[in-house]
Amino acid sequence: MKTYCFAEQKIILTEEARIHPSDIGLTRGYGIFDFFRTVNYRPLFLEDYLDRFINSASHTHLPLSYSKKELTEIIGMLIDKNDLKQGGVRMVLSGGVSANHFSPAEGKLFIFCEDLLLPGEEKFRNGVKLITEEYVRPLPTIKTTNYSQAVFSSITWKEKNAEDVLYFHKGLISESSRSNIFIVQKGRLATPQSNILNGITRKNVLKLVPETEVRDITLEEVISADEVFMTSTTKRLLPVTQIDDHIIGNGKPGPLTLSVLENFKAEEAKSSN
Amino acid sequence: MKTYCFAEQKIILTEEARIHPSDIGLTRGYGIFDFFRTVNYRPLFLEDYLDRFINSASHTHLPLSYSKKELTEIIGMLIDKNDLKQGGVRMVLSGGVSANHFSPAEGKLFIFCEDLLLPGEEKFRNGVKLITEEYVRPLPTIKTTNYSQAVFSSITWKEKNAEDVLYFHKGLISESSRSNIFIVQKGRLATPQSNILNGITRKNVLKLVPETEVRDITLEEVISADEVFMTSTTKRLLPVTQIDDHIIGNGKPGPLTLSVLENFKAEEAKSSN
Repeated sequence: MKTYCFAEQKIILTEEARIHPSDIGLTRGYGIFDFFRTVNYRPLFLEDYLDRFINSASHTHLPLSYSKKELTEIIGMLIDKNDLKQGGVRMVLSGGVSANHFSPAEGKLFIFCEDLLLPGEEKFRNGVKLITEEYVRPLPTIKTTNYSQAVFSSITWKEKNAEDVLYFHKGLISESSRSNIFIVQKGRLATPQSNILNGITRKNVLKLVPETEVRDITLEEVISADEVFMTSTTKRLLPVTQIDDHIIGNGKPGPLTLSVLENFKAEEAKSSN
Repeated sequence: MKTYCFAEQKIILTEEARIHPSDIGLTRGYGIFDFFRTVNYRPLFLEDYLDRFINSASHTHLPLSYSKKELTEIIGMLIDKNDLKQGGVRMVLSGGVSANHFSPAEGKLFIFCEDLLLPGEEKFRNGVKLITEEYVRPLPTIKTTNYSQAVFSSITWKEKNAEDVLYFHKGLISESSRSNIFIVQKGRLATPQSNILNGITRKNVLKLVPETEVRDITLEEVISADEVFMTSTTKRLLPVTQIDDHIIGNGKPGPLTLSVLENFKAEEAKSSN
């Protein structure tokens, strides 16, 4: 089926989108993006995602020539044109073609509609494994396209049958490569406060469970937690049952994880009506 | 003037080169590159640059469908076509369009010819300033396109009238964002051994001055060194006369720096005849 995207300031066939390869988005890996889902044709938590995208552009000195209102209109048109009932929308802003091949310039904006790649049902039933890696994403609070280290490491995760990575630094955990992390200790949720992307799913879990502690969390605490889960746009809440060689809790998805996941799904359904 | 590049497996007008913006080279900043100069139509130290490029592709799991011999032929044709007597040649290999928008795929190869952006004569006369930053480039020995942190920081360098950055970690210096670093202590050269890209200019300086110590160097040693210089393809050897607020030596380019630079230029002239 033909899909359409927003590129060169208009809606065109996705296969016809192009960018010049001397854009520093490619030659220097300098750009920003964001990604959200549609539920029943509605962009879920759109306001939050657009605020973050606009903030990422501003922090990285990349001019974005569309307002939040204009972006909302373009996204609405794209969802219609692609009949995107349940899907993903990816916004990308490149660093631009720069005279010195280095400094931020005026980039290109692309908005793509994509099929969703959701975790299989068995991952929610059995939980997933993470492997630890000492690393802090540069500019962790900004949604840059800088995933070079994670893409490289992903070859190792796969060899070890892991879903993803758990980053830590100086003994404190931060996040996974594209997800936030929560732990459950004696019935109470906690999530790291530093060196993380402020995930929109994380934000909504914090709304659902406002008594969650937002604080520093050590690697030891995670390994000995009763439950661990990761949050992201495509994963919602995904139970983590193993970290390196350590089994979390009894090795099965925990009751609080599954209960918050049900509440999140109910919230999501409400938002899309 | 029209310039030509290698793209889509042939030589085409540079302005007509394109890549699909869902390539993870753009959306995940995953790719490799390399850059060398021509001197009197000859690619300087080509063998070294091609070896490094082929090694970068292999380490990052990116298939490169051209042999060293084929790349050499293409580069020769491009230099002819662009009449590139003194210029820069940039090879870029993208991460490819990946089904899961993340894993390395089969990327696109581009080879561009560019005007050289050489440091002005006054920088060789007066030396330049670096500012320190605690950072290690991910995969430092591989020439990835991961310069997101450096591009972002470059806004700050410019505000501080600095040429570039000096990276350090745990008290040891490594490199500048796109250059290697040498210090001179009591007539003897030293250069860091860890967390660095193995620069081709660095390699040739080591050939010219084989008694150079390749070892760990502390930030304190650099600041109190008699001379400091940086090496790169476009800079050759560029004197560093200030680091943050510290003046290096007597604040002027040092005699050993200038003498090795002259020897390097002589070597370069020899290689191009």
